[in-house]
Parts: sequence; C-alpha cells; structure tokens
Amino acid sequence: MPKTSDAPRERRARAPRRRQQEILDAAARVFHEKGYESTSIQDIADSVGILKGSLYYYITSKEDLLYQIIEGVHREGLKNVDAVEALDASPLEKLRAFVTGHLLYNAHNLVRTAVFFQDFRSLTGERRKQILAERDAYEKYLRDLIRQAQRDGSVCPDVDPKVASITVLGMLNWIYNWYRPGGERSAREIGELCADFVTSGLHCDPKTHRPGHRRSLAPLPQAFADALASSGARRNGSRRG
Amino acid sequence: MPKTSDAPRERRARAPRRRQQEILDAAARVFHEKGYESTSIQDIADSVGILKGSLYYYITSKEDLLYQIIEGVHREGLKNVDAVEALDASPLEKLRAFVTGHLLYNAHNLVRTAVFFQDFRSLTGERRKQILAERDAYEKYLRDLIRQAQRDGSVCPDVDPKVASITVLGMLNWIYNWYRPGGERSAREIGELCADFVTSGLHCDPKTHRPGHRRSLAPLPQAFADALASSGARRNGSRRG
Repeated sequence: MPKTSDAPRERRARAPRRRQQEILDAAARVFHEKGYESTSIQDIADSVGILKGSLYYYITSKEDLLYQIIEGVHREGLKNVDAVEALDASPLEKLRAFVTGHLLYNAHNLVRTAVFFQDFRSLTGERRKQILAERDAYEKYLRDLIRQAQRDGSVCPDVDPKVASITVLGMLNWIYNWYRPGGERSAREIGELCADFVTSGLHCDPKTHRPGHRRSLAPLPQAFADALASSGARRNGSRRG
Repeated sequence: MPKTSDAPRERRARAPRRRQQEILDAAARVFHEKGYESTSIQDIADSVGILKGSLYYYITSKEDLLYQIIEGVHREGLKNVDAVEALDASPLEKLRAFVTGHLLYNAHNLVRTAVFFQDFRSLTGERRKQILAERDAYEKYLRDLIRQAQRDGSVCPDVDPKVASITVLGMLNWIYNWYRPGGERSAREIGELCADFVTSGLHCDPKTHRPGHRRSLAPLPQAFADALASSGARRNGSRRG
C-alpha cells in the first residue's frame, strides 16, 4: 500500500489495539469458563488462535490480563457516575438513573463482570489496592446520593445509607449469576423493576414519617425473633467454619 | 476404660463425625483462601494436621468435600423455609422473617457461603443438578410468598415476583463480599434493615394503588433514558466479551 495515504497507517496503528481487545475478550471468556487459577497462558493463546510466544508480545503475565479486565469494568462503571451526576434531576430520580445504568452495564457485560466478581480475589498488591479504592469511591457516590435524598425528604430518615448502598449494589451485581439475554424480561425492564424496588424501598413521605414506621409495617413475628436469638446463642458457643 | 459403660462407646461413635466436621471446616477455609481449583488434598490435610493418606479415610475426592460444604449450606438454608412456614403470621410478616433469617444464616456462615457462591461452578454432574434443583425450590418459596402477599393486598400488584425474589436473594447473598463480624452494625441489625428495605420496597397500600405509581414516584430522566438507548444500540453492534 502507498505510504502517502493516511488510511493504511491508521489501520496499522489500530490493528494491535484491536488484537489487544480480542485477547482481553478471549481471556475473560476462558477465565469465566475455567476459573482464573485453572487457566494457563496456553489456554488463552489457543482461544485467540495465536502462538503462546506471540501472546507475550501483548501482555507480560496472566495477572496483567485479569487486571486489565477488572480495571476495564471499573472504568466503564465510573461513566455511570458521570452520566448520573450530569443530570438536572432530583436525588431520587438520580438514584433511579444510577440503578438502571448500573444494572444495564452489568447485563450487557456478563462475562467481564462475572470475572470481576469471581476472580478479583486473585488480584494482588498495588493493583488490588487500586481496584478496592475505586470500588469504594463508586459505593460512596451511591451512599452520598442516598444522603442527599434524605436531606430533601425523599428518602426515609430511618435508612442507613451505608448498609443501603452496599445491599443495593449487591442486588444489582448478583445478576451475573442469573440473567441471560433472551429471557422473559429484557435487561431494560429488569433495570426499571430494580429501580422501582430501590426507590420505593428507600422512600417515605415526610408528612407521614414516624421513626420506625417501616419496621412496624410488618413486624418480625415474636416466635421467629426468639428462635433467631436462641440459634445465635448456640452458634456463638460453637465452632465456626 | 471398662466396656460395660456406654459413654466411651458413644464418644468413639461421635469422634469420626467430629473429625469429619473438622475436615469440612478446614476444607471450606482453604477453598475460601486459595480457591477450590488451586487447592490440593495435601493443602487440606496440612490444614487439619493429619496425613494425606488418613484424609482419604474420611473422603473419596476433593469434589466430595465441595459437595458436602455446598449441600450443608442448602440443608441449613431450607430450615429457614420450615421456620417461616410454621409461623402464624401475614405473608408480609413472613417475608420479613424470611429475609432476616436468610441474612443471619449467611452472616454466621461467611466462609461456607463464600465457598458456595465462588466455587459452585466447579461442581459437576448429578450433584450440580441436585443443588440447582434445591436452589430453585428455595427461590420458588420466596416467589410464592410474594404472590401470597400480592393476593392479600400487602405487596404492590406491579411487582414481578420472579425478578423480585431473585434480586432480594442476590442482595442478601452478596454479604459474604462485605460483612465482617465486629463492624458498626450487628448481623441482626443488618438483617432488620434489609427486611425494612424489602418489605417497604414491595409494599403498597391497595387504597392508593394506581398502576405504575412506583415508577412515577421518581421517573427516569429523559436525557438518561436517551443515553441508555443509544449506548444499547452501539453495544448490540459491537463485539461482546
């Protein structure tokens, strides 16, 4: 091809990046199927269809690949924060947007998010610390959104923002365990149902709020509370696995 | 010891079972730390403090141990269903009891439940099928409870029982990722906060119910809906990891 045209040069520049992405996609698939610890560099090379030696042109270690997959999920996740923050909307509306955006990202990236949650424990050192810090910042954004909604009266003052934010994220993250495209409900519908649940679950009307009213809506039956207390006492006295 | 006394004979009968339980506890700890796939039978023998050969007196394979750990979590979990079902209480109160009981079991068995969720993928064949069937039955119990509460008017008719049950379980199961005993909130308090969230999130007052009222409480901002639609379109046209 003639060197005077820009197009081939751009194509050449893009080619390694495209190959890099193919390798990351293949690694995520293989980690997901076999588990990170059981996967060899050879498995990944086989899955991409290149020689193991050629793979080392793009990466330096297996942990490199894991880090890049996990870091990619985080980087994309933070875009959800930016999109929500840019909205001209109430805190409760932002909460709905955050929940819907997070659910949809996970639903569209099931393999990567599964690798994130299942194989994060294999990440070590500084890289692990960095991802944990990013995860904490993401969770803090949701916690602050709940606090803002408490200040404007749309979220019940009885809600604990820390427990609420972490359980909401758990609910959304869990979908890698069960959601498969092509089922009864689209990811968008599931996102909206989750957002209905979260906004209704945290909201109360300031005019009718009384401390503890969410608990008194359906109190824990006494017989059950007693059974929990006695099983807790047994458990504390016994060997813990 | 004299053979005429029953006590030593009973002790001898209990000893292997106690040792069996010690082995299961040790296996769960090692699987949790290293991951099932990276753990050898030697690692487990070292952790119990017995010879590898002696370990085979109690088990036949590593997968045996994984199955016994996972099956144990399920068997204990089903006790939650029995305890809830035995209650003389409304469906919404039973829902609170179910959520609190499930959360507390997980909080008191963090290592076992972590192994369940992280290493279930390594279980194969009939055993895998059996656990999946038990998991489905457990989830179906929660789904049916939500349906009963819809029939008596305490849960909003707009709720999808299937999506609700699976997301509620996800929220509760997630705690192996973050809860550690000795933090700001006890497991019991977290269980009650989760139950407040779940009952409020699913409930509505039949007298004021209008279809879609939970969604209109805080609608998705239009700019965000548009951005989601366009990113979904881009994603469908692109390579999926």
